[in-house]
Amino acid sequence: MRKETSPITKIVVPAGGIGGARFLRGLQRAAPDADITVIGNTGDDISLFGLRVCPDLDTVMYTLGGGINEQQGWGRDDETFSVKEELARYGVGPGWFGLGDRDFATHIVRNQMLDAGYPLSAVTEALCERWLGPADDQRLRLIPMSDDRVETHVVITDAQGRRAVHFQEWWVRLRASVPAESIVAVGAEDAKPAPGVLDAIADADAVILPPSNPVVSVGTILSVPGIRPAMAAKTVVGVSPIIGGAPVRGMADACLTAIGVETSALAVAAHYGPELLDGWLVDTADAPDADAAVAGITVRARPLLMTDVDATADIARAALELAAELR
Amino acid sequence: MRKETSPITKIVVPAGGIGGARFLRGLQRAAPDADITVIGNTGDDISLFGLRVCPDLDTVMYTLGGGINEQQGWGRDDETFSVKEELARYGVGPGWFGLGDRDFATHIVRNQMLDAGYPLSAVTEALCERWLGPADDQRLRLIPMSDDRVETHVVITDAQGRRAVHFQEWWVRLRASVPAESIVAVGAEDAKPAPGVLDAIADADAVILPPSNPVVSVGTILSVPGIRPAMAAKTVVGVSPIIGGAPVRGMADACLTAIGVETSALAVAAHYGPELLDGWLVDTADAPDADAAVAGITVRARPLLMTDVDATADIARAALELAAELR
Repeated sequence: MRKETSPITKIVVPAGGIGGARFLRGLQRAAPDADITVIGNTGDDISLFGLRVCPDLDTVMYTLGGGINEQQGWGRDDETFSVKEELARYGVGPGWFGLGDRDFATHIVRNQMLDAGYPLSAVTEALCERWLGPADDQRLRLIPMSDDRVETHVVITDAQGRRAVHFQEWWVRLRASVPAESIVAVGAEDAKPAPGVLDAIADADAVILPPSNPVVSVGTILSVPGIRPAMAAKTVVGVSPIIGGAPVRGMADACLTAIGVETSALAVAAHYGPELLDGWLVDTADAPDADAAVAGITVRARPLLMTDVDATADIARAALELAAELR
Repeated sequence: MRKETSPITKIVVPAGGIGGARFLRGLQRAAPDADITVIGNTGDDISLFGLRVCPDLDTVMYTLGGGINEQQGWGRDDETFSVKEELARYGVGPGWFGLGDRDFATHIVRNQMLDAGYPLSAVTEALCERWLGPADDQRLRLIPMSDDRVETHVVITDAQGRRAVHFQEWWVRLRASVPAESIVAVGAEDAKPAPGVLDAIADADAVILPPSNPVVSVGTILSVPGIRPAMAAKTVVGVSPIIGGAPVRGMADACLTAIGVETSALAVAAHYGPELLDGWLVDTADAPDADAAVAGITVRARPLLMTDVDATADIARAALELAAELR
């Protein structure tokens, strides 16, 4: 077994949902002694049935806490759907968003705390005490990018005309089948980073961008004023979410197209830009010609399929090694 | 089979939970063509996990809509408890109130409508569309006694000193094991009857008091200004909840003791009083001496155990016949 010798012990990871959560599990395996601060995307958050649902925070929390549905990558294990079925019997929707009974409990607790006036960061910390252990003992800490409401909306044109829909409606209900004309993080420009976000970045040895959606996950986090420049001042290494010209999972291509970025590993690196990104891992399938490299970004090719936790730990280790080199 | 010939076709029933709901099922059997307006007690309502729970309204709705847990008399049939178990895993209580998954859906829908600004009466009507059919076609209509917050509190003295607790805490958590020093319907004096309540009473041929708790169910309804005098102007026949000097179910004796009323069928009749009550059904076990009768109230003895729907229909039929005689 290979001994980890990286000097990187304080790590910040801006993460979306499934891809980010799975990468984090590998990162924990690769760097068991590191302090990891996860800055969670909240642009996908949505109010359903009067309850505040935070899909990306929950996916990270459930995955790292051992409560995730491993097959689908989101939602709770051993889940049942009595509440949802009953809501449908009352004629109350939407039915397209799959909230299970165990998952409902999370949203009920969150909503109760939010209604009582706690900010989302405090609510998230309270929920994480169950999944990640007492706050003071956590090697991995999850903080929402902001306590302010930021909501990703997608402009589409369909039978109802040109209109903005909530990201979840486009992503989950429409399965991104209608082209996104634009994607807007509503409220982002007035949002402040949540308490602890800027401190964690300032204190970090490196920022690792996981293979989360570069537009609606990492991109939304970076759109909160203050976060991008704070990260840019650090060593930042990213893992490409695009392998062989296609997203490994999800529909990141539809999001990239909406913002005019080609669906390729290098185009994503160029989109992040050399002022943010120092190093970039691409899959061996995307190993660039010398000509194709992005100026100012060190690109390294290696297998990037997160087939299991061991393979994912190898990817995380490669990212940490590259960060250590580039510091 | 006996043909129902009672001239009573418009009936108002102020009802609590289990006893009231079961009586109503018998009343529907006894008078299938009657228009029944149920005025539901909301003094037992409680906010749990940020959701508004209306135990008595729901017990009536589930019982008459075929969704009740027949064994326990409250809650949903085929119920599961995933949400509650998960809430406990988060350390969120109280655990002593048994909310099942299917039941949670009702409270989620109710809360969402209340948060949107609908009054409880409109919310109840919407929920009942599922259980009792389209509002315009309902032979039985359920209206909460008031849209205003009325909450039954119980003053007790225990290890924590003398204090007021919510009725549900005394009833469900403490099982009425600590004596009630007083029982107060907080907010009642400022409450208004919900829309439709006074009209239904004014329009009724008779008011039937079911064998609900005379203190915290029927008594709370009567405490809303305007309801008692409106009923007193009508023919009112009650069914004793006390048989052989004890409540048939529940802990009505503990409530009666708190307000200084003996636990006997006739004492309850006297408590309601002749200005409200015209007729009173007592069990054959409680058939009074001529001396013991309450002045101004016609007392009739007959079997009152609601052993099944047929037996309950017989009781309801007797109440209607007595009301028809006394009009």
